[in-house]
Amino acid sequence: MVPSEIRALFAVVSRPEVVSLAGGAPYVSALPLDVVGGMVGDLVAGKGAEVLQYGSAQGDEELRARICEVMALEGVTANADDVVVTVGAQQGLDLLTKIFIDPGDVVLAEAPSYVGALGTFASYQADVVHVPMDGEGLVPAALRETLARLRREGRRVKFLYTVPTFQNPAGVTLSAARRAEVLDICAAHDVLVVEDNPYGLLCYDHEPLRALRADDDRVVYLGSFSKTIASGLRVGWVLAPQGVRTKLVLAAESAVLCPPNFSQLAVREYLNTQPWREQIKSFRELYRERRDTMLESLDALMPDGCTWTRPAGGFFVWLTLPEGLDAKAMAPRALAERVAYVPGTGFYADGTGQRHLRLSYCFPEPHRIREGVRRLASVVQQEIGMRDTFGGARPDRAPRGVHTPGPGIV
Amino acid sequence: MVPSEIRALFAVVSRPEVVSLAGGAPYVSALPLDVVGGMVGDLVAGKGAEVLQYGSAQGDEELRARICEVMALEGVTANADDVVVTVGAQQGLDLLTKIFIDPGDVVLAEAPSYVGALGTFASYQADVVHVPMDGEGLVPAALRETLARLRREGRRVKFLYTVPTFQNPAGVTLSAARRAEVLDICAAHDVLVVEDNPYGLLCYDHEPLRALRADDDRVVYLGSFSKTIASGLRVGWVLAPQGVRTKLVLAAESAVLCPPNFSQLAVREYLNTQPWREQIKSFRELYRERRDTMLESLDALMPDGCTWTRPAGGFFVWLTLPEGLDAKAMAPRALAERVAYVPGTGFYADGTGQRHLRLSYCFPEPHRIREGVRRLASVVQQEIGMRDTFGGARPDRAPRGVHTPGPGIV
Repeated sequence: MVPSEIRALFAVVSRPEVVSLAGGAPYVSALPLDVVGGMVGDLVAGKGAEVLQYGSAQGDEELRARICEVMALEGVTANADDVVVTVGAQQGLDLLTKIFIDPGDVVLAEAPSYVGALGTFASYQADVVHVPMDGEGLVPAALRETLARLRREGRRVKFLYTVPTFQNPAGVTLSAARRAEVLDICAAHDVLVVEDNPYGLLCYDHEPLRALRADDDRVVYLGSFSKTIASGLRVGWVLAPQGVRTKLVLAAESAVLCPPNFSQLAVREYLNTQPWREQIKSFRELYRERRDTMLESLDALMPDGCTWTRPAGGFFVWLTLPEGLDAKAMAPRALAERVAYVPGTGFYADGTGQRHLRLSYCFPEPHRIREGVRRLASVVQQEIGMRDTFGGARPDRAPRGVHTPGPGIV
Repeated sequence: MVPSEIRALFAVVSRPEVVSLAGGAPYVSALPLDVVGGMVGDLVAGKGAEVLQYGSAQGDEELRARICEVMALEGVTANADDVVVTVGAQQGLDLLTKIFIDPGDVVLAEAPSYVGALGTFASYQADVVHVPMDGEGLVPAALRETLARLRREGRRVKFLYTVPTFQNPAGVTLSAARRAEVLDICAAHDVLVVEDNPYGLLCYDHEPLRALRADDDRVVYLGSFSKTIASGLRVGWVLAPQGVRTKLVLAAESAVLCPPNFSQLAVREYLNTQPWREQIKSFRELYRERRDTMLESLDALMPDGCTWTRPAGGFFVWLTLPEGLDAKAMAPRALAERVAYVPGTGFYADGTGQRHLRLSYCFPEPHRIREGVRRLASVVQQEIGMRDTFGGARPDRAPRGVHTPGPGIV
């Protein structure tokens, strides 16, 4: 394992003069902190013997029942017995990879894909093969072709890792029409589907979509409270068919004994006693405004030749620079202009992504988003000028290796 | 991975009529729960934007500084930069094993050893080789012989895993005279020492001992707040030389992104604002009384031919049955008499341990300990009677495999 090349860059992102459009941290200050504090204090005072004690490796049973109610909002029918609580969805991903992957096995992932997943896959020596997306998400024809090619090559494909809804980093969503097709293709090739869905409830233009898992019980589903309640609790979960779930519980026990009761029972109490559905609606309004501010600013300010996605939910916009520009080479110059983003190369396992970058609108307030885009547009304009004067960049391919996300990127 | 054979047994241990001398759960109800609840509530209300947010993979910097102060109580001098906060010490063990072990590598461990460690080693396909202990802990001559034999066999020994102080499960402590010798032997064979020290501050007959790490910077040290504050927080740590520490941070990030700020900052606040040294003294008094009760009860009640260790700290007594008895075969009969323990076989990777069992005195109140030992003594007396009538048991060797500890055993 080697540190991500983008990690060093982000040591400076937290400076107050920098507008960071880089991180994926949710805006937890929007929670009623006094109320949540009072709730947690009462919980520890009243049920400390349970809250402060070891729990089971699978996670608290009542919490797992509440989790099923949360998943029902996206059409998922599930039994609490099939849920495993994890230390964030990241741990679910780690344990699944540990269970399924032998060195050299193939994992399919969207191009681009979540940087934390790529790091985990690489740490178990999986070989990530990317499948292209367009504005409607993963392209079924490309998935079919990729699977056929890998079969001809005698490769062993263990699973498709997908973030179908409000994808990180691309901000696109797999269309309803394609969902059944993707499931059918994977079933025909006997390839497991791992659906990672941290953003599904943060939808700004329509009601929540049906999860892939809602229409196929074989899907392994990763969920998280990091974006709908609070990331610092590190409470996520895996919903998996029984054979997988049994292995997950053993792997979880070996990894951490049990997830923290302290976090789990805080989430349980929050779901039991607080107006969590209304809080999610209020998060939607908050993030919708930021998403709109970012898109309006990009429309108004970005130079010709740039294109970007228009997310209907989640936290991210994926921007493509004009030909001849290199987002990684541009990043230090953008930082000098006090704006930060994540260069696209971190989201590919194959060293591509030079012309892309990820912009997040989840954390900065709207006036900061506007200012950040203004600075970014000016940097891109300068880059275009340099390209026109000195010729296009010959982008470096990123070195292969584990691109761990680094603090605060997610 | 396969479930532990003892796991099924423990589904019934939590029944109130059963005196459980099986679990290793600390008595967290002894904490001032109102005060801790108030502290946590104020923390979330006042610093929620930090407490509920993602943190760094290495763990909170101020907490790491406080951890160095805790380790100083056992003679360890360390820099906060070299500490990695983990989701319990179990995660530290898991990540170290992931980093160091290739399938077939050897890990040395005491005989018997911590069941959760054996599970983790097996999950990475390490080959555990046990080294005998006596009343003074690991036997240096046996360690030397084992290393020489493994060298002759061309085996690759990656590390010695040891719980030198108040060992789980044996309740014995590596004597001061042997500590330097064990370190020297490992240094001479270029074998890393991994010191797991969850119980060191829970000493009942003397002041805290110097940790192995106090006299050798090359030792990788695992620490935990599970027994000195609360297990449900899942806050442990690894202190490691820089090369190892850098890899640990990357592995931790891949596994869980970051440990929960919610737990970490609760521990930080507790160490900053609460009389934690006095609380540890109060835990010592509580557990000393329980230890004394157990030893007095064993002295008074156990049939001839039984022997047991006399722990100077920690949570466990290791009991050896008379010849011809089998602790695993006896366990269901003990449960029928409403007393539970952990059969010794779970603490060996090589299928031995049939005549041994682990008794814990950390959780039940003294009158329950007395009653539990009374029931156990009666069961053992019956077993002796059966042996004398029908002949000795031919103990089964336990099947090899990952013996994950199961809920509440630890």
